[in-house]
Amino acid sequence: MADIAAELSGIVGAEYLLAGDAIGEDYAHDEALSSEPVKPAFVARPGNAQQVAQLLKAASELGVPVTARGSGSGMSGAARPRENGLLISFERMSAILEIDTENHVAVVQPGVSLEDLDAELAKHGLVYPVYPGELSASVGGNVGTNAGGMRAIKYGVTRNNVLGLEAALPTGELIRTGGKFVKTSTGYDLTQLIIGSEGTLALATEAILKVQPRMPHQGTVLAPFVDLDEVARAVPKVVSSGVGPLILEYIDGLTMGAITYRAQLQLGVPDEVREKSHAYLVVQLESRSADRLEEDVAEVGELLAGLGAMDVYVLDGSAANKLIDAREKAFWAAKEAGADDIIDTVIPRASLPQFMERVRAIAQENNTFVIGCGHAGDGNVHLAVLQKDHEVRDRVLHDLFEAGINLGGAISGEHGIGRKHTERFLALTDPAKVDLMRRIKTAFDPAGILNPGVLFD
Amino acid sequence: MADIAAELSGIVGAEYLLAGDAIGEDYAHDEALSSEPVKPAFVARPGNAQQVAQLLKAASELGVPVTARGSGSGMSGAARPRENGLLISFERMSAILEIDTENHVAVVQPGVSLEDLDAELAKHGLVYPVYPGELSASVGGNVGTNAGGMRAIKYGVTRNNVLGLEAALPTGELIRTGGKFVKTSTGYDLTQLIIGSEGTLALATEAILKVQPRMPHQGTVLAPFVDLDEVARAVPKVVSSGVGPLILEYIDGLTMGAITYRAQLQLGVPDEVREKSHAYLVVQLESRSADRLEEDVAEVGELLAGLGAMDVYVLDGSAANKLIDAREKAFWAAKEAGADDIIDTVIPRASLPQFMERVRAIAQENNTFVIGCGHAGDGNVHLAVLQKDHEVRDRVLHDLFEAGINLGGAISGEHGIGRKHTERFLALTDPAKVDLMRRIKTAFDPAGILNPGVLFD
Repeated sequence: MADIAAELSGIVGAEYLLAGDAIGEDYAHDEALSSEPVKPAFVARPGNAQQVAQLLKAASELGVPVTARGSGSGMSGAARPRENGLLISFERMSAILEIDTENHVAVVQPGVSLEDLDAELAKHGLVYPVYPGELSASVGGNVGTNAGGMRAIKYGVTRNNVLGLEAALPTGELIRTGGKFVKTSTGYDLTQLIIGSEGTLALATEAILKVQPRMPHQGTVLAPFVDLDEVARAVPKVVSSGVGPLILEYIDGLTMGAITYRAQLQLGVPDEVREKSHAYLVVQLESRSADRLEEDVAEVGELLAGLGAMDVYVLDGSAANKLIDAREKAFWAAKEAGADDIIDTVIPRASLPQFMERVRAIAQENNTFVIGCGHAGDGNVHLAVLQKDHEVRDRVLHDLFEAGINLGGAISGEHGIGRKHTERFLALTDPAKVDLMRRIKTAFDPAGILNPGVLFD
Repeated sequence: MADIAAELSGIVGAEYLLAGDAIGEDYAHDEALSSEPVKPAFVARPGNAQQVAQLLKAASELGVPVTARGSGSGMSGAARPRENGLLISFERMSAILEIDTENHVAVVQPGVSLEDLDAELAKHGLVYPVYPGELSASVGGNVGTNAGGMRAIKYGVTRNNVLGLEAALPTGELIRTGGKFVKTSTGYDLTQLIIGSEGTLALATEAILKVQPRMPHQGTVLAPFVDLDEVARAVPKVVSSGVGPLILEYIDGLTMGAITYRAQLQLGVPDEVREKSHAYLVVQLESRSADRLEEDVAEVGELLAGLGAMDVYVLDGSAANKLIDAREKAFWAAKEAGADDIIDTVIPRASLPQFMERVRAIAQENNTFVIGCGHAGDGNVHLAVLQKDHEVRDRVLHDLFEAGINLGGAISGEHGIGRKHTERFLALTDPAKVDLMRRIKTAFDPAGILNPGVLFD
């Protein structure tokens, strides 16, 4: 171990290699619930891409497992280290290298937080539109999990907004993929392959992000419906209208209660409506023109009223921000409420009612409490599972995932598989696909050092 | 050979396997210029996905090289067969399986043409927004090359609009990737890896396409500028305005002459402007509202006038359609004008003037005629190269690609590498990346049967 420490600290410098008691608690976990923290043998904090590549090369030679960490805000344990392993923390590589207003891209290091990036882009009237709930999340972590968020209905997810990467391979090379352009057909798209690979193929050391003009005006409509079926029926009509919503979320009645209570939020929904409504639809619009926004908001309001909404509330800016913010923090509300697990199955959005019917049945069969909200426009359902018994909870998660897959969905829309769901992923995925993915993994990482236990056992 | 024929015809049925003289000329080429046609040993026309998978399995066992063919409209020779090989033509697998208006997707077989798909989607008020010039192109071919086209500035390219695939692996399995949802973080994104792989990894047997509401109103602004520098300076301003152009094309003076002459097109640009203008910018906008479109068109017109346009012409619907159509057919104009090669290098769009300066220098040094037009918003430059001498032309292409790469670009934005540019691709690409791609290729295709000579030698 002393030899390994010497080699690693020779790469990053002694002050940037931690071992033993010098390793703080924070490095031992991400935000995956019901996961035991694990302190790694080493934490390296590289200062540049070359050091990352050298660390990987050394780890490959020494057979040391490597886990990458951005801000540690992941939900599936993909940043939870191995006891005998090396954690590479990107905290020192957090620079915004360039905001290129001619090509509409930002070039950043992986450790930069979405919050810092947004503050800088705002100065240029630009926005990087990927908004997962947690703004302390790092771009590198977002690349790892292919993070999504509420604006995916309009702008897509991480993979739709990252144009290129610099990445360190486990074999020690640094490669550049993609570039400051939105299209290329020049060999395999390594950018897209690395995005969402949860630190198992290569580590991004730089990212070229597509940025957009920042729209100055936003408007939000809140519509309570009797149930989720009605919400699901309304969603395609909103999309078909061509109004191009920025956000299209559903929140079930219980979750709405929890998040508004937690945020002390008054939305003006009268008691008699609240009592009868089991599902809310939140539609946020944006526009470069205040007049057009007002027209669009009115149009959506009328459309929803015609589609069975019990009422339609146009939220003022402050209430809207608070609601969106509260929705973004639904995870924390669930955590405080004692959630033992959070999942984010994705299904074709029209199958939302059928899926939720299965969810209710699975919850009932297993005497488990399951509540949620989700990205109605994307079919991405976030569910909090409250069940202390480990075995029962395992069965519930398995059955929920299976229900999603049977409806043409997938285990995770944006959180990733991580250490948490790898076993279920392997059990529920076509073996031909798993084998192929394993061969791709080996093509990148012949020594198998990158995040063992994630995606493969 | 008789044994091979027997095995293959046992899979697809004797009437769907062609050999020898029964193989028509069309199967011997795509639209890559200056490429000798090559008749394959066999043409199979499978009727379903299982047959495709069985053909690949048999080919792997027999060591027969396999080339896939959609409509044969590719520009880089990726559908040009091998003399001793099997060509799989998807002409019988051209069904539109489903238009799902709830999830906003279309499920199609790979042989369907963009034209047929568009006609069907139009009935539902929907559009699949990928519009490469050639509407006889098949969806499967588009998947192979990651086809782009003029609307990429707004809607992205093929990879941004394909949500899932069914694909046959060379090892004989059929797998399903992605689904009727826009986001997933559940293992490696095989959909994205197969898209743009030019038939070297797996063959798509079904595709799930994201479709959009079809906008009823379109408006087009034509602005002549003194030179390309001015055009390139105007482009980011149009993007920053937030007007969200559907099309943002530049056409150089010579190409404009050629395509308008060919189409007998009167655009109302007076002689004195035409004589002084070396570059045109075409901006097309779309909207769901006629009033908004009119406002947007006026705004873009004013913006361009303020950015140095010599004049601004709002084209009526008929003239606009003819111009866009003529631009789409620029390839045919170039072919008729005697072009010996067409390339489509992509660069960061702000580097367009620098790139074109290098293009002029390379053309002059080599006594070669190079003209073009391109996707100004995407930095994707289409150049026709007129040079009969094979060696000189090779050098010119190499130098043009190298110039693009040196500016942070890539060899091809949307045409692909194909058989035509593989040698140059290998010479100009980081060997670490080529090696990695080769290992990925082997992970899919251990017997090396899929399109040998494309991407790798």
